[in-house]
Amino acid sequence: MTFQRIAIIGLGLLGGSIGLAVRQHLPEATTTGYDRDPQVRKRAAERGLANTVCETAADAARDADLVIFCVPPGAMGEAAAEIAEALPPDALVSDVGSCKQAIAETLGKAFPDHAIIPAHPVAGTENSGPDAGFATLFHNRWCIVTPPEPCDLLLLTKLVEFWETLGANVEMMDAQHHDLVLAVTSHLPHLIAYTIVGTASDLEEVTRSEVIKYSAGGFRDFTRIAASDPTMWRDVFLANKDAVLEMLQRFTEDLTGLQRSIRIGDGDALFDHFARTRAIRRSIIEEGQDDARPDFGRADHED
Amino acid sequence: MTFQRIAIIGLGLLGGSIGLAVRQHLPEATTTGYDRDPQVRKRAAERGLANTVCETAADAARDADLVIFCVPPGAMGEAAAEIAEALPPDALVSDVGSCKQAIAETLGKAFPDHAIIPAHPVAGTENSGPDAGFATLFHNRWCIVTPPEPCDLLLLTKLVEFWETLGANVEMMDAQHHDLVLAVTSHLPHLIAYTIVGTASDLEEVTRSEVIKYSAGGFRDFTRIAASDPTMWRDVFLANKDAVLEMLQRFTEDLTGLQRSIRIGDGDALFDHFARTRAIRRSIIEEGQDDARPDFGRADHED
Repeated sequence: MTFQRIAIIGLGLLGGSIGLAVRQHLPEATTTGYDRDPQVRKRAAERGLANTVCETAADAARDADLVIFCVPPGAMGEAAAEIAEALPPDALVSDVGSCKQAIAETLGKAFPDHAIIPAHPVAGTENSGPDAGFATLFHNRWCIVTPPEPCDLLLLTKLVEFWETLGANVEMMDAQHHDLVLAVTSHLPHLIAYTIVGTASDLEEVTRSEVIKYSAGGFRDFTRIAASDPTMWRDVFLANKDAVLEMLQRFTEDLTGLQRSIRIGDGDALFDHFARTRAIRRSIIEEGQDDARPDFGRADHED
Repeated sequence: MTFQRIAIIGLGLLGGSIGLAVRQHLPEATTTGYDRDPQVRKRAAERGLANTVCETAADAARDADLVIFCVPPGAMGEAAAEIAEALPPDALVSDVGSCKQAIAETLGKAFPDHAIIPAHPVAGTENSGPDAGFATLFHNRWCIVTPPEPCDLLLLTKLVEFWETLGANVEMMDAQHHDLVLAVTSHLPHLIAYTIVGTASDLEEVTRSEVIKYSAGGFRDFTRIAASDPTMWRDVFLANKDAVLEMLQRFTEDLTGLQRSIRIGDGDALFDHFARTRAIRRSIIEEGQDDARPDFGRADHED
């Protein structure tokens, strides 16, 4: 009862990984793929990111029973319009975007008569484009499904099973709560990483060469996240503005508190704060959501 | 002409790694070690972090030609006082601390008649204690030496060669500039990571379990740094207060600018900022200061 003909619109890190994961875990299904960039289509065909890479989005969607939008939030409306006419009436519409309220609204307008169940696999790397995807990206990662009210329960079950087949654990919540949770576990961390890398690049007293040489002191960790796709992240911050600004406000309050502790020399307050943040990493490792080896298992300790 | 009898005061991540690295790279030298925690001394002896683990700091220093303090900045004064009487007059005093002006002052008071050349290997992991060290920690990492004015050039040369023998690249600068550079490449990143992990832990609307489950969206990266030793980091922020507050001010200004861009929906400004931070990561990888694999080469993509 699983999906048989899966259309993937957008063949970057996420779309490409879905294509490769379907090939590995659902070999009986067929995939069609489309990307608006001809160079990406060419490379996607070479890597076999979909069984068929089509020249138009409508062609990719024409026979699908599941279409998954894997484009930045801001490109979702245009991509949806391109396939609205061609999509079979009983096909399920889904996506992988990082902000669910705005995307649900966009897809709802484009497909007033289709079933729509948004989803968000919380998985990725700092790389983007058609060479970035790999079949195991979703293994042991969480995929959050945000069913609308009301929701077709048969299609919901099929979508959950689809993601489980690709190796993910599935959780359900409403779109508003999703956007709040992701604001703190993903959007705020990206905003802060982008900020500090920018700050370090702009200093006059410290050269860029010094920043690079001594980055192993902690800074280099932030540069990974800040190397993520700028188009996608621009769209995420615009689409999840309220929750991001809310979390940013909390962060700024806490940072101001620590700043004051440093200024007045309150070592006890600093120690208390620093001592209670270890437990959360231990839990993340215990739950299989990070590498237990020191330094994420970076290779430079292995020589 | 290298050092022959090296005393290591403090047998945690850095002290233990020096001991193991000397054993590997300078087998003709002998090491003595001391830690004020008896459990650490016991474990250090079991792991062979020094040839001899002594019961007092004075015993460890008694025959040394180089003593290296590997204790948190705030514990440096007390540790120095413990060996001041025993240290041979021609021994060189050095350390591995992350803030050089304050430490140089502390050591200068404790050893008015000894040569003192502070140093700071920019290397580490999030782990601490006698089990955390390993012999290759300094390989291809930078060690910043901050020679005083005037400086014994023979001892300076020996110290530089010592660190090079352990696998490090050595750079020299004055202590004030060191403290500014490290404020941005190390201290500010740690402060921000500690802050955001605290912020996420304190939310009422998002449970801790949700923060842990969906941490792969970016948050988990920050938890590694925020798992670092709280005592050491308390001391670093107190000892390098001025430079940290200065860098924090720049960061806050930049964050406020991005916050405003989000609030008014200025996508172009966001995109421009996000697009220019990729280059610095590329440089860090090209210079061998980070793992080139996606996601730092985390093991969870390899199944």
